Amino acid sequence: MTNVLVNGMPEPYIDTADRGFNFGDGLFTTILIRDGRPCLWPRHWQRLQAGCAKLAMPAPTEAELLNDLSQLTSRGRSEVAKIIVTRGSGGRGYQPLASAVPNRAVVMRPLPEDVVTLRKNGIVLARCTTPLARNPVLAGLKHLNRLEQVLASIELAKLAAHEGLMSDTAGNLIECTRSNLFIVQDGRLLTPPLLECGVAGIMRAQVSESAAGLGLTCDQSVLTDDMLATADEIFVTNAVIGIWPVIRLLQSKSRSLQVGPVTAALIGRLEQDGVVL
Amino acid sequence: MTNVLVNGMPEPYIDTADRGFNFGDGLFTTILIRDGRPCLWPRHWQRLQAGCAKLAMPAPTEAELLNDLSQLTSRGRSEVAKIIVTRGSGGRGYQPLASAVPNRAVVMRPLPEDVVTLRKNGIVLARCTTPLARNPVLAGLKHLNRLEQVLASIELAKLAAHEGLMSDTAGNLIECTRSNLFIVQDGRLLTPPLLECGVAGIMRAQVSESAAGLGLTCDQSVLTDDMLATADEIFVTNAVIGIWPVIRLLQSKSRSLQVGPVTAALIGRLEQDGVVL
Repeated sequence: MTNVLVNGMPEPYIDTADRGFNFGDGLFTTILIRDGRPCLWPRHWQRLQAGCAKLAMPAPTEAELLNDLSQLTSRGRSEVAKIIVTRGSGGRGYQPLASAVPNRAVVMRPLPEDVVTLRKNGIVLARCTTPLARNPVLAGLKHLNRLEQVLASIELAKLAAHEGLMSDTAGNLIECTRSNLFIVQDGRLLTPPLLECGVAGIMRAQVSESAAGLGLTCDQSVLTDDMLATADEIFVTNAVIGIWPVIRLLQSKSRSLQVGPVTAALIGRLEQDGVVL
Repeated sequence: MTNVLVNGMPEPYIDTADRGFNFGDGLFTTILIRDGRPCLWPRHWQRLQAGCAKLAMPAPTEAELLNDLSQLTSRGRSEVAKIIVTRGSGGRGYQPLASAVPNRAVVMRPLPEDVVTLRKNGIVLARCTTPLARNPVLAGLKHLNRLEQVLASIELAKLAAHEGLMSDTAGNLIECTRSNLFIVQDGRLLTPPLLECGVAGIMRAQVSESAAGLGLTCDQSVLTDDMLATADEIFVTNAVIGIWPVIRLLQSKSRSLQVGPVTAALIGRLEQDGVVL
């Protein structure tokens, strides 16, 4: 059985004229498949549609994507689905064809091994030096221009850490290489605004909603190193891992933390809602 | 006869696991082929090597690329070659495999029809609103993260202009959607520095050298709208077009210009050196 569909066909190849390959001209999303079921699908689909609209590119239909997923998943199997949608093929250089039809690739991958263990035990978070560029036009989108994350991940591979913290070129903490950042301070959740850069993560949105359900406020706020140094709790989120608590922060001043009560309550809520492993 | 080679094979397809397709994790260059011969090859190859080094990715060999080009070109034919080099396939998300082997695609395309006519008659240059993000780590590279140029080109398609001028998020003029920007002021050439963003074009370097050969100084300088409004001459450059003089500038204050003597002398020099059509 194949683990890749390109435009619905079981082929692991894309046209070299594809605009994703040429320019990163497209979007993607990474979905947790739990027991054959895509978790938080409405959020993934809504973000994909909104992203296509913002990039002025056509979107595949929801039926096409759900059909692809149903062909690749099977009951009892938990894994990760990655959907890539591009503005299609061709055009005159950067300028797309008016008639461009989107290309889509859906790829299934095994779960990372450490997802549940690290959610229980916590992670080490280190600082990467590769900055995130600020561009309000692209901020929040999970687009295919991800060289900054690649370079930060190469840094991270040399550090004794599970995730890498990234700042923008103005020095504001924004997110991690593959996850969003939250702190808990005095019982209140804070996460950086993503108006200039960063990816508006599916799990970031879900955690904000779960927090409200638990009677917690969650605000968007500029986060500084000093705030990280004194935060009661720190955690990171993405759609595959859910929440990973930070138990050690490697900064100019390193510190150790516990898995705190707010983080634990949020993890409990995600488990209860069946949106994590 | 094929017009595409992927890793030396006559196939117009790339693996969906390719990191160019997934993340824009790679570089490209666009080469003028004049009568079967790649123009300015040493500059293209040097920039590609330097870019791979800066992105900490392996490069194909010069022999591989020259062999691909010689298979695809033929004497008497003038066209455009695009070389795409990516960090190869796979990895754990953003993190590349240590063993990654680069993928390369070489694609031949027909010449744009208007290259020589517009070099003679000049172009209309309009302002795009999509900003260029500033990131010193990526500045100057001709990498595959080109969503900003795509969005600016979509703007340009709606304007009555041949090229679109782009500023960075700080408001500095940087370049055009697919070319670099020069002005002539009091017999002196000025072009924006590319320390925070922009593509260090092959023809930009060639024109700087040609200017020196003509006894002209060429400096890197921040360019402002006011400087464009009073410049003696304005032109844009890239490896396929050579030089296009700007004869009309659509800005807050629009203006018309002549093809000036410095621009004409530089065009003459490029023609004489056989590096343009």
